[in-house]
Amino acid sequence: MTVKELTDLYPSRVNDRPRILERKDPVIFSAGDQLKQGPLDQEKLDFYEKNGYLFFEKFFSDDEVQKWRQELRNVWEESKHTSAPEIIREPQNDEIRSVFKIHETNDIFNRLSRDRRILDMIMQLLGSEVYIHQSRINFKPGFNGKEFYWHSDFETWHVEDGMPRMRAISCSIALEDNYHFNGPLMVLPGSHKYFVSCVGQTPDDHYKQSLKKQEYGVPDHESLTKMVKEFGIDTPTGPAGSLLLFECNIMHGSNGNITPYPRSNIFMVYNSVENGLVQPFSGQNPRPDFLGERTIKPLKPIE
Amino acid sequence: MTVKELTDLYPSRVNDRPRILERKDPVIFSAGDQLKQGPLDQEKLDFYEKNGYLFFEKFFSDDEVQKWRQELRNVWEESKHTSAPEIIREPQNDEIRSVFKIHETNDIFNRLSRDRRILDMIMQLLGSEVYIHQSRINFKPGFNGKEFYWHSDFETWHVEDGMPRMRAISCSIALEDNYHFNGPLMVLPGSHKYFVSCVGQTPDDHYKQSLKKQEYGVPDHESLTKMVKEFGIDTPTGPAGSLLLFECNIMHGSNGNITPYPRSNIFMVYNSVENGLVQPFSGQNPRPDFLGERTIKPLKPIE
Repeated sequence: MTVKELTDLYPSRVNDRPRILERKDPVIFSAGDQLKQGPLDQEKLDFYEKNGYLFFEKFFSDDEVQKWRQELRNVWEESKHTSAPEIIREPQNDEIRSVFKIHETNDIFNRLSRDRRILDMIMQLLGSEVYIHQSRINFKPGFNGKEFYWHSDFETWHVEDGMPRMRAISCSIALEDNYHFNGPLMVLPGSHKYFVSCVGQTPDDHYKQSLKKQEYGVPDHESLTKMVKEFGIDTPTGPAGSLLLFECNIMHGSNGNITPYPRSNIFMVYNSVENGLVQPFSGQNPRPDFLGERTIKPLKPIE
Repeated sequence: MTVKELTDLYPSRVNDRPRILERKDPVIFSAGDQLKQGPLDQEKLDFYEKNGYLFFEKFFSDDEVQKWRQELRNVWEESKHTSAPEIIREPQNDEIRSVFKIHETNDIFNRLSRDRRILDMIMQLLGSEVYIHQSRINFKPGFNGKEFYWHSDFETWHVEDGMPRMRAISCSIALEDNYHFNGPLMVLPGSHKYFVSCVGQTPDDHYKQSLKKQEYGVPDHESLTKMVKEFGIDTPTGPAGSLLLFECNIMHGSNGNITPYPRSNIFMVYNSVENGLVQPFSGQNPRPDFLGERTIKPLKPIE
């Protein structure tokens, strides 16, 4: 199938006025035996279908969190004097903000990305084998944590990377205790069933800026107000080791953080092997692989 | 008493290293009959003594809130094309952020500043008649509400205005429903018993910038981390009409707000008539009267 033949089910950044479209994909893709055999039970499945996310308090043990925090520090040290494109720095002070592709460059995080406890849930929800579309660790120190404005990840991945359908799930593992006052992720539960078509065109090589500050693919105030009114705001918070799975199209964002509490986390995006990237729907060149993996590499679970 | 004779009990912005000093003033100033006759009962007094703040959910009626919100809009409209110094605008877009001195320039807010329901509590806590040190309304629209970094109001009022002792109380009336996710005020309960002596000197006419972005009188990370560890963080939130009284020296701040929910409020500072301003302890010229009233004007309560 060539690009020309693929209909853009979710057009964005092509119109002068924003629009709210209905989702054209299922939320849960597996059926029959695969759906029934778990690990997620019917209650959890219903919650995910309705709200677009699942939160597991203290899913991982303290020992595991300890190990990952140590490895986060190692990666930070190793990355300090490196200028690889996978290392994203703060605009103001050059401090490292994120390191991408850690599921390929780091043994410990590679094993984590294939952890059966995560993968089995992901495959149950996406109904197929999966691969990593993007992975990163986020260093979020306290005192001056920056806000991240409302967005649907899928909008970016669709327009800028060429992800055709809503069949991906983000997985965020908290490496620090999270409170309602240190700028936790806010989600609009239920918003994954709607697609906010944003206004404006995307400039070339936009990603170099967008990782630091969003300017395109930004939903409008009216749509956001409408959605917040309809869906409310959930802020799943819990101790270090908590796991958040959220649907690729759920509207989310986070406020800044002036508290001393850091918010570092591990972030991995699982995409269905049946949802591999095509030419970006913006018509522009795709972003680099560390932001949107273009080679489908099915994951083998490990215990 | 001349300025030279007045000892600076709370030196700040004079040393190279921050220090945490103990409070040298009582928290509650009245005694005997005045203390006993209310309106605050022993439980409330104990809470204030220990935590440095009092929160009253929905203290005012919906009708009152409605009236003040209407008046807030009137003031906004009147102020739009005025360039009085009492009107503070956003650095980026010139939108009005605060209008000061509203207890003198506006009838409705003048009456509010003398409301017996507030004044009786304030006088019970401060043990004397009181006057308004500063008043303002804050317009805080949703979507891009700015953070306000940690600070003790007293530190500024002492150094920049010449408020000698900790004998003032701030009163904040929420004109909108407040949630934990729209950047509510955060306080460190108990921090009013300590004074963080900040580093650095204050440049002349600093106030013109400091109202928009703080750079001086900023507590250091180490002191803040220590205090947060010891005291924790409280975020008193509630519906519109809620009233927050907080001690002038309590450490507080607020995160930004990307939600559509605005956070407009009325803010009035009551100072004891026995705590009138002297020469600023920075040795510099005092700030204008709309920021720190230099004339003691005792308030007559009205029903």
